[in-house]
Amino acid sequence: MNRLVDAALSGDHRAIARLISLVESGAPLADGVMRAIYPKTGRAHVIGITGSPGAGKSTLVDKLIGQFLDAGKSVGVIAVDPSSPFSGGAILGDRLRMQGHAVSDKVFIRSMGSRGSLGGVSGATGEAALILDACGKDVVIIETVGVGQSEVDIVKLADTVCLVLVPGMGDDVQIMKAGIMEIADVFIVNKADRDGADKVVADVRMMLDISPRVDWRPPVVKTCAERGEGVGDAVKAIDSHWYHLMSSQEGRQRRISRIESQVEGILRREIAAMVNRVWEDRKDHGVLEELLERRTDPYSLAEEILDQVLSPSR
Amino acid sequence: MNRLVDAALSGDHRAIARLISLVESGAPLADGVMRAIYPKTGRAHVIGITGSPGAGKSTLVDKLIGQFLDAGKSVGVIAVDPSSPFSGGAILGDRLRMQGHAVSDKVFIRSMGSRGSLGGVSGATGEAALILDACGKDVVIIETVGVGQSEVDIVKLADTVCLVLVPGMGDDVQIMKAGIMEIADVFIVNKADRDGADKVVADVRMMLDISPRVDWRPPVVKTCAERGEGVGDAVKAIDSHWYHLMSSQEGRQRRISRIESQVEGILRREIAAMVNRVWEDRKDHGVLEELLERRTDPYSLAEEILDQVLSPSR
Repeated sequence: MNRLVDAALSGDHRAIARLISLVESGAPLADGVMRAIYPKTGRAHVIGITGSPGAGKSTLVDKLIGQFLDAGKSVGVIAVDPSSPFSGGAILGDRLRMQGHAVSDKVFIRSMGSRGSLGGVSGATGEAALILDACGKDVVIIETVGVGQSEVDIVKLADTVCLVLVPGMGDDVQIMKAGIMEIADVFIVNKADRDGADKVVADVRMMLDISPRVDWRPPVVKTCAERGEGVGDAVKAIDSHWYHLMSSQEGRQRRISRIESQVEGILRREIAAMVNRVWEDRKDHGVLEELLERRTDPYSLAEEILDQVLSPSR
Repeated sequence: MNRLVDAALSGDHRAIARLISLVESGAPLADGVMRAIYPKTGRAHVIGITGSPGAGKSTLVDKLIGQFLDAGKSVGVIAVDPSSPFSGGAILGDRLRMQGHAVSDKVFIRSMGSRGSLGGVSGATGEAALILDACGKDVVIIETVGVGQSEVDIVKLADTVCLVLVPGMGDDVQIMKAGIMEIADVFIVNKADRDGADKVVADVRMMLDISPRVDWRPPVVKTCAERGEGVGDAVKAIDSHWYHLMSSQEGRQRRISRIESQVEGILRREIAAMVNRVWEDRKDHGVLEELLERRTDPYSLAEEILDQVLSPSR
C-alpha cells in the first residue's frame, strides 16, 4: 500500500488510477490512503466545469487542457456523470476526443459514475480531486454532465466554478432552478458563433447587475471551443479568479467550508454504516413483522437502534 | 398534546391540520405525535397520482373524490409540489376547484411544499399520509406536480400508483426517464376526447406487453375528467388493484418496504442532526485552522469524533 501511495505521489498515472479506484470502491484501505496523501494536498487549482448537455463542455475542457499544458502546468481531469453506474475504465464517447492529451504524462483523465458509491458521488469525486492534487497536478478539472442538484454538490468542490452556456438552448430556467448561476465564478458562452450569443452574454450581465456578488464580479467570456477561439480568454478569466481567491479572504473561506463538508461527509458515512449494521441485524430478527403488526413503530425502533450505536455520554 | 392527538383521531379536521403542520415543521414534539398515532395506521388505501403538469390531475382528483364519497368513503388529499416552499395554508390555483368538497367533513385537503423540511419532502408527506390514515380516512390520495425523482420517491409511499397521461404532450421520454412507467399500477389517459388518445393507450399496452409485470397487469383507462367521463372506470381499476394487493403477497411486500424506508428516513435524519451537533461542538476550537494547515486531516479528525460519539460496545 505504501509503495502504491509513494508511486502515485511521484506522479505515476497507473498508481494514481489505482488509488482513485480504491477510494471509489469504499475499500477499507481507502481512509488510510487519504490520510497518507492529505498532508500533500492544498496546492492545486480545482476548476469545476458545468452546464447543460450539448453545451460543448468536453471540447472546451479539451482545449483548456491544451492551454494549461502550454503554460507548463500539469492537469488532472475528473469527468463525472452522476447518473451513470460506470466508472474508471469507462470512457464516455466525448472523452475520446481527449485522447490526444491522454498519452501525455502531464495529463491524467478519469471518468467517474459511482451512482452507488457509499459516500455519494461528491464524496468520491472530492477524494479523487484530493488525490490528483497530492500527486502533483497543478490544475484539477472536475467536469460534470448536466445541471442538477448533484452537479451543484460536485461543483462546490471547486475553487473556481465555470458555467458553460450556449445560445438558443433555452435551458436558462433549468440552470436558475438548480442554483448554479449563484455559484458560478466564470461564465463561458460557448458556440459563440451561433445566433444569440450576444443576447446570452447580455442576459448574464444583466443578472449579475441585479444581484451582484460582494467581492467578485464573474467575467463573461465568449468561446468557440471547436475552433479554439476565445479559449485563451477563458483561461485568463479562470486564472484571474484564482488570483482573487489567493489575495482575498474568500479563498480561505472556500477551503474552510470545503474541509468542513469533507469532515461532515466522513462522519455521516461512518455513522450510517454503523447504524445500517444494527438495522440489518434487527431486520433479520423479525422487527419488520413487529412493525407490520404495529407492535412497535418506526420512531421507537429508530431510537432503539441509535441508542445501541451511540455512546451514552454523547 | 394528547388532547390534540385525540381530537385528530376522532376526525377533527382542524386538529389534523395542526398535527400535519407540527410534523412538517420538524418540531421536537413531532416524533411523539407519530408514535402516538402509529398503532392506528395501516387501514387506509393510499393512492398516488402523478403525471406531467397539464395532464389534468387535479380535476381528475376532484372527480375521484366525488366517486369515493358516493361510495361512502372518507377521503384525505395531500397535494405535493416539491419545488414550492409553500405549505399548509397555501392553496394552489387548481385546488380552488376542489373547494366544493372541502366543506364536507368527509374530505380533508392539504397542500404541501416543504422543500426545506427536515426529513425531505417524502418524509413529511409520508407522515402526513400516516396521520390521515390514523385519523380514519378510508382513502388517502397523494397528488404530485410534475414527474421527477422526488415525485417518484413520493409516489412510492402509495399502495396504488396512478400515472396520468394525456394525448399529444410528447412527455413520454421524460416519464420513461423518471422511471414512473415501471412503478405505475394504473394508467389513466386523461383528456381522452383529444386526438391521439387511442394511440397513447396502444403505446402503453405495447410497453406493458414488452416488459410485463409478474403479478399484475396494470389496466389502462381512458377518462375525460372535466366532463366526468370514465372516472368510474378509473375508480374500478384503482379498487381492483387494491383487492389484488389484499389478496396477494404483493400488498404485504409493499407495506414492508414502505416501513423500511420510513425507518431509514428517520435514521438518516437523526444521523444528520447528530453529525451537525458533534461537529459544531468541535469546530470552535481551532480545529479548522489545524485542518487548513494540514496539521491534521479530516479522516483522523472524524475518527476522533466518532470515538467520542459511538458506543464502545458497538
